[in-house]
Amino acid sequence: MIDLRSDTVTKPTQEMREAALNAKVGDDVYGEDPTVQELEETAADFLGKEAALFVTSGTQGNQIAVLTHCSPGNEVILEAESHIFYYESGAISAFAGVQPRTLKGNRGAMDPAEVEAAIREDDQHFPETGLICLENTHNRAGGAIVPSSNMKEIYSIAQKHGIPVHIDGARLFNAAAAESQPLTEYTQYSDTVQVCLSKGLGAPVGSVIAGSKEFIKGARKWRKRLGGGLRQAGIIAAPGLYALNNMRERLTEDHDNARVLAEGINSMKKLKISNIVDTNIVLADVSGLGMNSSQFTEHLKAEGVLAVTFGPSLVRFTTHYDISRADIERTISIIKEAFE
Amino acid sequence: MIDLRSDTVTKPTQEMREAALNAKVGDDVYGEDPTVQELEETAADFLGKEAALFVTSGTQGNQIAVLTHCSPGNEVILEAESHIFYYESGAISAFAGVQPRTLKGNRGAMDPAEVEAAIREDDQHFPETGLICLENTHNRAGGAIVPSSNMKEIYSIAQKHGIPVHIDGARLFNAAAAESQPLTEYTQYSDTVQVCLSKGLGAPVGSVIAGSKEFIKGARKWRKRLGGGLRQAGIIAAPGLYALNNMRERLTEDHDNARVLAEGINSMKKLKISNIVDTNIVLADVSGLGMNSSQFTEHLKAEGVLAVTFGPSLVRFTTHYDISRADIERTISIIKEAFE
Amino acid sequence: MIDLRSDTVTKPTQEMREAALNAKVGDDVYGEDPTVQELEETAADFLGKEAALFVTSGTQGNQIAVLTHCSPGNEVILEAESHIFYYESGAISAFAGVQPRTLKGNRGAMDPAEVEAAIREDDQHFPETGLICLENTHNRAGGAIVPSSNMKEIYSIAQKHGIPVHIDGARLFNAAAAESQPLTEYTQYSDTVQVCLSKGLGAPVGSVIAGSKEFIKGARKWRKRLGGGLRQAGIIAAPGLYALNNMRERLTEDHDNARVLAEGINSMKKLKISNIVDTNIVLADVSGLGMNSSQFTEHLKAEGVLAVTFGPSLVRFTTHYDISRADIERTISIIKEAFE
Amino acid sequence: MIDLRSDTVTKPTQEMREAALNAKVGDDVYGEDPTVQELEETAADFLGKEAALFVTSGTQGNQIAVLTHCSPGNEVILEAESHIFYYESGAISAFAGVQPRTLKGNRGAMDPAEVEAAIREDDQHFPETGLICLENTHNRAGGAIVPSSNMKEIYSIAQKHGIPVHIDGARLFNAAAAESQPLTEYTQYSDTVQVCLSKGLGAPVGSVIAGSKEFIKGARKWRKRLGGGLRQAGIIAAPGLYALNNMRERLTEDHDNARVLAEGINSMKKLKISNIVDTNIVLADVSGLGMNSSQFTEHLKAEGVLAVTFGPSLVRFTTHYDISRADIERTISIIKEAFE
Repeated sequence: MIDLRSDTVTKPTQEMREAALNAKVGDDVYGEDPTVQELEETAADFLGKEAALFVTSGTQGNQIAVLTHCSPGNEVILEAESHIFYYESGAISAFAGVQPRTLKGNRGAMDPAEVEAAIREDDQHFPETGLICLENTHNRAGGAIVPSSNMKEIYSIAQKHGIPVHIDGARLFNAAAAESQPLTEYTQYSDTVQVCLSKGLGAPVGSVIAGSKEFIKGARKWRKRLGGGLRQAGIIAAPGLYALNNMRERLTEDHDNARVLAEGINSMKKLKISNIVDTNIVLADVSGLGMNSSQFTEHLKAEGVLAVTFGPSLVRFTTHYDISRADIERTISIIKEAFE
Repeated sequence: MIDLRSDTVTKPTQEMREAALNAKVGDDVYGEDPTVQELEETAADFLGKEAALFVTSGTQGNQIAVLTHCSPGNEVILEAESHIFYYESGAISAFAGVQPRTLKGNRGAMDPAEVEAAIREDDQHFPETGLICLENTHNRAGGAIVPSSNMKEIYSIAQKHGIPVHIDGARLFNAAAAESQPLTEYTQYSDTVQVCLSKGLGAPVGSVIAGSKEFIKGARKWRKRLGGGLRQAGIIAAPGLYALNNMRERLTEDHDNARVLAEGINSMKKLKISNIVDTNIVLADVSGLGMNSSQFTEHLKAEGVLAVTFGPSLVRFTTHYDISRADIERTISIIKEAFE
Repeated sequence: MIDLRSDTVTKPTQEMREAALNAKVGDDVYGEDPTVQELEETAADFLGKEAALFVTSGTQGNQIAVLTHCSPGNEVILEAESHIFYYESGAISAFAGVQPRTLKGNRGAMDPAEVEAAIREDDQHFPETGLICLENTHNRAGGAIVPSSNMKEIYSIAQKHGIPVHIDGARLFNAAAAESQPLTEYTQYSDTVQVCLSKGLGAPVGSVIAGSKEFIKGARKWRKRLGGGLRQAGIIAAPGLYALNNMRERLTEDHDNARVLAEGINSMKKLKISNIVDTNIVLADVSGLGMNSSQFTEHLKAEGVLAVTFGPSLVRFTTHYDISRADIERTISIIKEAFE
Repeated sequence: MIDLRSDTVTKPTQEMREAALNAKVGDDVYGEDPTVQELEETAADFLGKEAALFVTSGTQGNQIAVLTHCSPGNEVILEAESHIFYYESGAISAFAGVQPRTLKGNRGAMDPAEVEAAIREDDQHFPETGLICLENTHNRAGGAIVPSSNMKEIYSIAQKHGIPVHIDGARLFNAAAAESQPLTEYTQYSDTVQVCLSKGLGAPVGSVIAGSKEFIKGARKWRKRLGGGLRQAGIIAAPGLYALNNMRERLTEDHDNARVLAEGINSMKKLKISNIVDTNIVLADVSGLGMNSSQFTEHLKAEGVLAVTFGPSLVRFTTHYDISRADIERTISIIKEAFE
C-alpha cells in the first residue's frame, strides 16, 4: 500500500525508536523529565519564544492555547476552514466556551481588513474578541503557505486592539522548509504557536506549544485538566526531539514529490489539481471522472494507493517521509491506468 | 425626540398598564400563575405547538432553545448575521458549549443546498450538527421576510437528517402581518420557535418559546438555571397577553410607515436605501454623505431623531407603535434639511 | 387555603400594582428606564455598594455573581446546603464551570478555620479558589441569621487570600429586621450581595445584585447573556422599589408569627420544631407521627394549610405578608386537630 | 535519593523500553495501531468489559468518563476527598459542566444509605444525578481498599435509580493484588472503569478506560476533543501492555514494603501512622514532632528521602517497583536518626 492519506501515518524511524529505548526520563508532572525539558527548550528556541510545553497532539495544543488566552463568551477570529474550526469536533466551544467567527480566506490567508472589521466593539450585545488564530501551512487550502507579510499585517492589527494571535503551526515546518526561512520568520507575528512533531517530522506522538513564560504556566494547568500531564514522557519526547533536530530540512523532498504527483495528475484529461502545491499536499478534483471522491478513493485503494476525501469531489494526497519518489511515480501510473 | 432606534423602545399602552394593575397572579415557579398560563396557552395556539413557555427576553428564549436541543460539542447551523450569532454575546458557546456554523444568506434566507452541505458526517473530527436556526423576519437583512417556501425546504432537509429546527421569530409577527398569513404558515416548518412580545407588539417585557410538551419540560429547567423562573409573573404576562391578542394586525401600519420613510430617504441624492423594505426596518447607506454611520446618527440626534448604526456606513431606522405617519414625515424633513 | 409554603407566594399589594400602572419607563437595555435606575440607586445605597443591577430572580443574581467573579476551573467555597449549591440545578457548574467546595455549617454559618483550610494552594492539581459565598439568612438552616461577627472573620480571611466574598442575601432583609440593623452591618463583609424583592418584601418579581462599579459593568453583560436584559422593566421595578422602600420593617411581624407557630407546634406531643426560629421559617420534624413529610403535607393540604417538605421527615412553614396572626392560630388548631 | 513520593515516579524497565523499541505501530486516530488494539483488548478482558480505550492519563480517563456519562447541569456523587474532586483542578465542572456532590467516606467507602439519600428527586430546582464515582483503592484514605461488598450495595442502588457508576481505579490493581482477586471482583459493580498503567505497574505513560461498546464510541470522540487522539501510540502502548501483562502480581511486594515502613515509623515515639495500610500507601502524622508536614518533608529530603505533604500534619509515603526492602529499611533508619 502506498499511503498518501496524511503525513501523520509516518512510522517512527529506527533512530527514533532507539531514542525511546535510551531516553533519560523522570516524572514530568513533577517537572523532572530531562528529555521533555530538552525538547521544550529546543522548541522554544527554534520558535523564538520564552518557553514551550510538550503536549500529546496538535488538537491538544490548540485547545490549550484557546483555553489559556480566552474566557467563555469570547469570540475567536479564524479562517472558515481552519483546522481548529473544522476538525476539532467543536471543542473550543465545548471546553473554552468561545464562539468562532470565521472568515473565508484566500489560500488560507485572511484579509487583514476583514479581520479588523470582525473585531467587536465594546457593547453588551457582542462577545469580546479574545483571540485571532492563523493556520500555516493551511491544510484545507491544500498546504498553502500563508505569507509572513500577511501575518505581519494581521499581527499589527491585533496588537493595536490588544488581542493575542495564535498560530496553528501543525505544518509550520513545511512552510519554513519550503521558503528556506527560520520558523521565527512566521512566529514573530504571534503570541503563541503550536507545532506538530508527528506530521512531516515523523515523530510517533506529540506537539509543542510555545509562548511567554506566563502563558506556558497557565497552559500547563489547562494541560493537566485535559489529561495531558504525563509521567515518564521522555519515552515519547525523545523521538520527538530527534525529529525536531533532524527531520526539518528534508521536508523539501516531500514538497518535490508533491509537485511531481500534481503534475502527473494534471496531465490526465479527466482529473485536475485544484490547489497550488506550495508544500506536501495535493488536492485533486475528480468530478471529471463522473464519480464522487469516496468512489474514487475506494477504487484507488483497491489498486494499492490510499488517499482521503476532502469534500464531495476533492481528494487529498499528502506526501511524507515514508513516501519515496518511486512511490509517487507508481501512484501516477496506477491512477493513469485506473482512471484513464 | 422621534425614536426610530428599535421597536423595543415602545412604551406600554394604557391598556397594558391596566392589565398589569388587574392581573390575576400566582407563583409561577409553582406553576400557579393563571395569567402566565393563559399567555402560554394562547401563544402555543397561535404558534401551532403543543406547549409554550414565557421567558423574559428573546435572547433568553433562543438560549433556552439551544440549551434544550443541543449538547456541548454540537454544531449549530445559522445565518452569518443572525441575532443568535451576532447579538447574543457569544452566549450559545459560553452556556450551551456549541459551535456556530454560519452561512451567508440571501436577504436572511440560507440556501437549502448549502445547509445540507454544512451538515456534518459522523466522524470523530467533526462536531455533530445539533440544530438549525432560522430568523424570520431577519433583522440584519433589514427586516426581510424569509419565505415559507425556503423554510419548508430547509425543514425537509433537517428532518431527513434528524436535526431539529428552531425559529428565532423575534419579529415573526411582522412577517405574518405583512403577508396576511397565520403564524403557523412559518412555524409549521420548525420544531420550536421564539417570538417577542416586547418588539412590534409593544409589550413592556417578555417573549414566548413554543414546541412539544417534552421540549417545554426541558426548557422550563434551563429557564430556572438562567434565572428566568419568576414569581408573580402575571404582572408582566398580562400586558404581554394583551399585546398578543390585540397588537398583531396593526403591524402593517409600521410597515407602511417604513416604506414611506424609505422612499423619502431614497429620494435624496446622497443617501440610498440598501434593503428591500418588507416590514418595519429601513437601512440607509450614508457613505454618499462623506461621513460614517456614527457621525450621521450623532448629527441626526441633535436634530431630534434617533437611529442606530448598523455597520460603518449603514444606519437602521425601525418603525413601531409609538411612531406615527406624522413622525415619519417629520423625520424625512429633518434628514432632508440636515444632510442635503 | 393558608399558604405557608414560601414567602415567594405573596401577592403584590394594591400599592405595588398601582406602582406598575404609573411607572415611568424606558428601554432598560439602552439604560433608559428611570424606575429601574431609581431602584438600582436606592438598593446600592441600602446595601452600601457603589452600584446595583436589577435582575429577574435570586438565582439569576447569584449566577451572575459567580460568572462575574470566577473563571472555569475555579472552586467556590459555600455551605453544604446553601441555596446556590442545593437549589440552583447545578447551574454554577453548567454555566460558570466552577466546582463547589461545600462545608457543613453550624446554623448556616461556616467555621472560618474550615474556610481557610479549604482555600487551595497554588498547584496544578488544584482548582483555584475563586469565590466564597455566604447565605444570610440561611434557608435550609431554618432561616438562621449568620452572625455578622462570623461574616467578618470569613471576610478577613478572604481578603488575606485575595478571594472575593458574595452574599446570597435572598432573605437578608429578614436578618436586618430581626436584629434591627442596617443591611450594611452584613454587607460590609462582602464584595457583592444579592437581595430578593420577591420574598419577604412581597414584590411580584425581581432581585438586585450590588457591588463595585466595575463588577456591575461585568455583571450587566452576563445578565444579557442569561437573557435578563429587559425592555420597559420599570413595570416590575416599580413594585420592587415600592417594596424596598416600604416593606422592610414589617418583616418582624412575620418573625413574631413564626415564633407563635413554632411554639404552637412544639406544644404538641408528636411534633417537634427542629430549628431555632430567628426569622420567618419554622422547621417541624414529623417523624413522631409515624409518617413522612410528604404524607404530612398532603394530609395538611386537605385541611387547608400548605407547607413544603424539607427532607424525609422535615416540613417547612414560612410566614409572610399574606399571613396574619389569625392564620397562624388557625394553622395551629388545624394541625392539633388533624395530628393529635 | 529514595523516592517515596508516588508510584508514578517509577522508571520504565528495560523490558518496557525494548517493547517501545520493537512495537508494531500504526496511526491510532485511524484505528490502525495493532499494539494499542492489543492493549485495549487485553485490558477489556481483564476488566470484564466489552471494550476499552487507551488514554494518556488517569485524569484524562476520568474526565472522559464524566463527559461521556453526563450532561451539563448534572450532579455527580463522589467521595469528599476522591481524586476526581480533589486533584483534577475542577476539570469536571470546567469541561463537563457537572456539579460534584461530595460525601465523606469511611476509609474511602461511601455509606450506601447516604449515596441513596443524595440522589436528587425530579424537580426544576435540582440538578439531575448523572453519575456515581467510586475510587478504589482510595488515595487520600491511604490506599484503602473499598470492599467489593460496599461497591455492590452502591451499584445496586445506582441501578435502581438508573444512574451509571464509574470506578476511578487508578490503583485498582493494588486492591486486586492485595486481596488476590481478579479485577472483575470490583468492576462487576460498575458501568465503566479507569485503570492506570503508570502507577504501580510501572509503565511510563497511560491509562485505560473500559465499558460498553457504545460508551467507548462516545469516549473516543471526547478523547479527540481533549487532544488524546494519538498517532503511532504503540510506542507507549507497548510498555503499557508489558506492564499490564507482567507487573500486576508483584504489587504485593510494595504492600509488604509499605507495612514494614509503617511499623518502623509507628515504633517511633513522636510519629504515628494514621492509616491502616491495605496497599502501598503510608500516611504519617508528624504533629508530634512540633513541625508541619512541609518542614518534615524538607528535612527528610536533605537526608535523602522524598515524600509528599498530605495536609498540614500528614505526610504520604508510597512504595513502588523502584523501592526495595533495603530502601525501606534505610528510610526507617534515616527517619529514626533525623527525628528521634
